[in-house]
Amino acid sequence: MSIRPNIRAMAGYVPGEQVNSPDVVKLNTNENPYPPSPRVFEAVRAALTGDRLRKYPQPAGDDFRKAAGRVLQVDPDGILVGNGSDDILTILTRAFVPDGGLIASPTPSYVLYKSLTEIQNATFQTVPFADDWTLPNPWPVTGAHLTFLPNPNSPSGTCLRLPILERFAEQVDGPLVLDEAYADFAEWNGLPLVKELPNVIVTRSFSKAYSLAGIRFGIAIADPAVIRELLKVKDSYNCDVLSLAAAAAAIEDQGYFADVRSRILATRGRMHAELSSLGFRVTPSQANFLWCRRADNPVKPMYEALKARNVLVRYMNYAGYGDGLRISVGTDAEVDKLLAELRKIV
Amino acid sequence: MSIRPNIRAMAGYVPGEQVNSPDVVKLNTNENPYPPSPRVFEAVRAALTGDRLRKYPQPAGDDFRKAAGRVLQVDPDGILVGNGSDDILTILTRAFVPDGGLIASPTPSYVLYKSLTEIQNATFQTVPFADDWTLPNPWPVTGAHLTFLPNPNSPSGTCLRLPILERFAEQVDGPLVLDEAYADFAEWNGLPLVKELPNVIVTRSFSKAYSLAGIRFGIAIADPAVIRELLKVKDSYNCDVLSLAAAAAAIEDQGYFADVRSRILATRGRMHAELSSLGFRVTPSQANFLWCRRADNPVKPMYEALKARNVLVRYMNYAGYGDGLRISVGTDAEVDKLLAELRKIV
Repeated sequence: MSIRPNIRAMAGYVPGEQVNSPDVVKLNTNENPYPPSPRVFEAVRAALTGDRLRKYPQPAGDDFRKAAGRVLQVDPDGILVGNGSDDILTILTRAFVPDGGLIASPTPSYVLYKSLTEIQNATFQTVPFADDWTLPNPWPVTGAHLTFLPNPNSPSGTCLRLPILERFAEQVDGPLVLDEAYADFAEWNGLPLVKELPNVIVTRSFSKAYSLAGIRFGIAIADPAVIRELLKVKDSYNCDVLSLAAAAAAIEDQGYFADVRSRILATRGRMHAELSSLGFRVTPSQANFLWCRRADNPVKPMYEALKARNVLVRYMNYAGYGDGLRISVGTDAEVDKLLAELRKIV
Repeated sequence: MSIRPNIRAMAGYVPGEQVNSPDVVKLNTNENPYPPSPRVFEAVRAALTGDRLRKYPQPAGDDFRKAAGRVLQVDPDGILVGNGSDDILTILTRAFVPDGGLIASPTPSYVLYKSLTEIQNATFQTVPFADDWTLPNPWPVTGAHLTFLPNPNSPSGTCLRLPILERFAEQVDGPLVLDEAYADFAEWNGLPLVKELPNVIVTRSFSKAYSLAGIRFGIAIADPAVIRELLKVKDSYNCDVLSLAAAAAAIEDQGYFADVRSRILATRGRMHAELSSLGFRVTPSQANFLWCRRADNPVKPMYEALKARNVLVRYMNYAGYGDGLRISVGTDAEVDKLLAELRKIV
């Protein structure tokens, strides 16, 4: 069987551990600790009636696009629906990057970009963040077919400001993907740039802000002329009737989201203070997680000790940046458990 | 914006019209006219409890794979889950076909193969079916990176027999995808070949047999060593918690499926007889649709007249094969309406 050599050679992206035990405090994959809006459940139950399961869904998700267009104040034709924001990133890669092409991204960042590059048989060029999580000016990569800039970034949780993004978008060659998976927790985002700069594409995830990681839904927002080309690359029916109904209900319930968001930001503030007092060097975060390093000891034993005590966080190790724990913001009770165990371990 | 030239140049796959009006008898996209198993609805409702929506699904769908492995009598590690069988065909294309590579398929057949080829910037070579819907022996294409053989085929509904498939699989270079989207309605299928011939990959859709077009679910069955490579190419979480639950419940309820199948086959037999008596040349079908041509008149005006009377069928026109109507097998009431309108039109 002739699997392509680039596929055979690659290791494959390894997602965070998915455990499903009520005993485990799961703070490793940045899921939202609160349930989706009650309207999501109503919408899914309503979609189970009639003959919607047995019939194909709307190919471009037009009802969802109208709802999202109203909430985000963008042209519905400038919205692409995706089976998770990973599906969107895959579509973008296939639409823009030729075999042997170039994809650029800062580092440390979302490891999936490298996997997407390998699948497309392209070259991946990374540019290191400075110690304060800023990027070099000018941006040193030329000739990229696609540039991914996660903002807020993972694992740092840091978020570049609008004037910086604007300068960056003008400096990169070709399209710039602002991967805003975590932007709903930040104080600002790059959406206004889509109308100003034709090379900016904003992507959003419904996994984090809207508590729909299990549903798989993400979007791209860009110039409608770009979206028209991306529609050719996506699978005809990439989003199903239940996820489309759930996503529309979620984005329309901004009151519920505002409440969830304020609880998460309050807990994030408390976690930052408490983890700092436990000796962690915590990076100020605009996302729903915290990047926690230590000057004194390696953190891998702490990750393992936490895991043994049924608290799962993400251990990450980046050359030049040291190792750290990326800890999702949980409920207050989950965070209390985390802190109690850490006090015993540290 | 530098959209790849191959993407810009392509027209994009155009799926069948999706109307959602109770007044329209929809026989154009081969949906199952009966609802999914009651167990599907129970499984989806059960998945709405607890915290399953807010947490990521199982990346490889292991619970589903175990259930499907039992029913299909195959190794669960030899099953790949997909967001519809289109997702599976996309993954196969990306795993096997390099830029500038070669994809082969018989014609007339599923038009999506050409779109997948264009997105991958590869070359598409088709080999015409003979008038009796058999294929040339020996198969004349050499050097293909991937060969798609839909069986049963669309629009013909014809199904090549196992010894023919076996000979075919031995003749093609590289992997052979037996696209069995409609095999659940046929008297035989190619699944036994997966264990015998390492280059055979069988794909199945849950849209037709299990009435889950709205849910998006399909699978590939192949050597576990091949599936391991395909797992690197798929998005990490390509199937969501609700579709995984629905698909597992559907495939486990073989009693319900056997009942639905026997009703569809009975109606198919009646449609074949009645359409023939109305002057159509109807190809004997092993699928849930019939390919209906006429010697006397072009059928496009009939398609249009049916549409004006709220009966939607699929009009298709293939150079060298004439035009025809591909008509899905509906409920008996839907078929009565189709036949009543056709009697007025013909």
